[in-house]
Amino acid sequence: MVEEDIHKGERLMESCIEKKIYFHDTDCGGVVYYANYLKHLEEARTEYLSGKGIGLKDLMAKGIYFVVSHVEIDYKAPARYQDVIRIFTDIEKVGFSTLHFFQKVFREDNLLVEARTTLVCINRDFKPVRIPDGLDSILKRETRD
Amino acid sequence: MVEEDIHKGERLMESCIEKKIYFHDTDCGGVVYYANYLKHLEEARTEYLSGKGIGLKDLMAKGIYFVVSHVEIDYKAPARYQDVIRIFTDIEKVGFSTLHFFQKVFREDNLLVEARTTLVCINRDFKPVRIPDGLDSILKRETRD
Amino acid sequence: MVEEDIHKGERLMESCIEKKIYFHDTDCGGVVYYANYLKHLEEARTEYLSGKGIGLKDLMAKGIYFVVSHVEIDYKAPARYQDVIRIFTDIEKVGFSTLHFFQKVFREDNLLVEARTTLVCINRDFKPVRIPDGLDSILKRETRD
Amino acid sequence: MVEEDIHKGERLMESCIEKKIYFHDTDCGGVVYYANYLKHLEEARTEYLSGKGIGLKDLMAKGIYFVVSHVEIDYKAPARYQDVIRIFTDIEKVGFSTLHFFQKVFREDNLLVEARTTLVCINRDFKPVRIPDGLDSILKRETRD
Repeated sequence: MVEEDIHKGERLMESCIEKKIYFHDTDCGGVVYYANYLKHLEEARTEYLSGKGIGLKDLMAKGIYFVVSHVEIDYKAPARYQDVIRIFTDIEKVGFSTLHFFQKVFREDNLLVEARTTLVCINRDFKPVRIPDGLDSILKRETRD
Repeated sequence: MVEEDIHKGERLMESCIEKKIYFHDTDCGGVVYYANYLKHLEEARTEYLSGKGIGLKDLMAKGIYFVVSHVEIDYKAPARYQDVIRIFTDIEKVGFSTLHFFQKVFREDNLLVEARTTLVCINRDFKPVRIPDGLDSILKRETRD
Repeated sequence: MVEEDIHKGERLMESCIEKKIYFHDTDCGGVVYYANYLKHLEEARTEYLSGKGIGLKDLMAKGIYFVVSHVEIDYKAPARYQDVIRIFTDIEKVGFSTLHFFQKVFREDNLLVEARTTLVCINRDFKPVRIPDGLDSILKRETRD
Repeated sequence: MVEEDIHKGERLMESCIEKKIYFHDTDCGGVVYYANYLKHLEEARTEYLSGKGIGLKDLMAKGIYFVVSHVEIDYKAPARYQDVIRIFTDIEKVGFSTLHFFQKVFREDNLLVEARTTLVCINRDFKPVRIPDGLDSILKRETRD
């Protein structure tokens, strides 16, 4: 069972979105193109934050942006046309201006992809800034320790 | 020969860009995904305008934008991984606030795609506006009549 | 109300999918990139057929493919980051080897995009073939006649 | 100067492709979308191999595929619409069935992105296999040691 797999030695990742694979996701190798997983991962992170009451669009209106500064991703098994994948998302660490996400992509109980992504909180001038107070406390509550 | 094909009964389309097909262009049907041609068509239109001295980025800085309002596209034959395609671009008509592009995509002398695209000149409020004077005259010089 | 708008003078389009707009859909003009709607339209057509019991993946396994031969699309108003769009899909006509789709994209009751797409039924050699018997009758039942 | 920057303490990366940024590369944050760099990186790796006489398409015809198993990427500065980027590519290590690429993306002399990508050589059953003899020796000649 998925839930077993994903919390071996770690907390259950509660946030999950489900996506179906269409032609536009795939390439002529017959599987999902490696860059396209990053789109699904973006969606999953956005929904994770949204589930905590954090709206990226509202923040943008205030001049607060989160941009990706680092991705480390392992492709373990391919997804194919019409597969249904589930993307589990968690925050591992909240830094001064950074959010550290950990995500896993499954097809049924097969782990396909594992990714760590760092987002940096920046202002309109693309300078890193402190994560706003309210956010910070919501997100810290979510992480381990 | 391509040049023969493309000016049967019409003026030679002088503007041409060449692109190679990579994995990211294709889908699991083994051919270029239908939406991805629209990216190549965008590039070809931009280079066509740039070749006339019209910089879309400079216009954007002045609050003048060109957005696509209509596309009609025929897919006649597929392109595949590592094919080299050539995209010929021409303007068929210049309206008050519209540019009407005609584009053909070839692999060697095989016509793969034919597309007609309408761009509308808009301001920051997304309202159609008259194409700026200088542009208008440059572009009208290019079209048949 | 959407349902009102979409069947003014025409049959209700019953098949609908809902999608949220993410960063990957948009471009630096601040709106959904024109080619990316074609991905959502693909998803909506696939779900329409799936709702009739027609699985494109099963057909592919039998050497029957549907490829896009023609698209005509009107962009009437832009969608933006985090908008929720609804894509209504219908088949207007079933030909010997062609399916003619009509699709509308709404944000609430605003019509954003209208598209007509022709799919051709082909075999492994990319030759048009007759739409298989069972399919043909399922789909003809759906169209106006 | 770029050449200075990229071989500080390391060998010059001789393989370079140049790409211009178009609307389809960007997102509504006004910069290149993070996943889209992976498309440019794919192109650059393909051209690097092609420059060594290694054709991925020919290999595919023989049932030999290279798939991405790992990416680690740092986004240091954003690229924007109409920027010209240069992607430098090198192989750091050749394993039994793996190629380890190192790539840098510059705009003029600004380092925008740094990426390490592992490709695995697989057969038609998606099983890792030894990199074919000829390839192996060509590629090892290119790497340090």
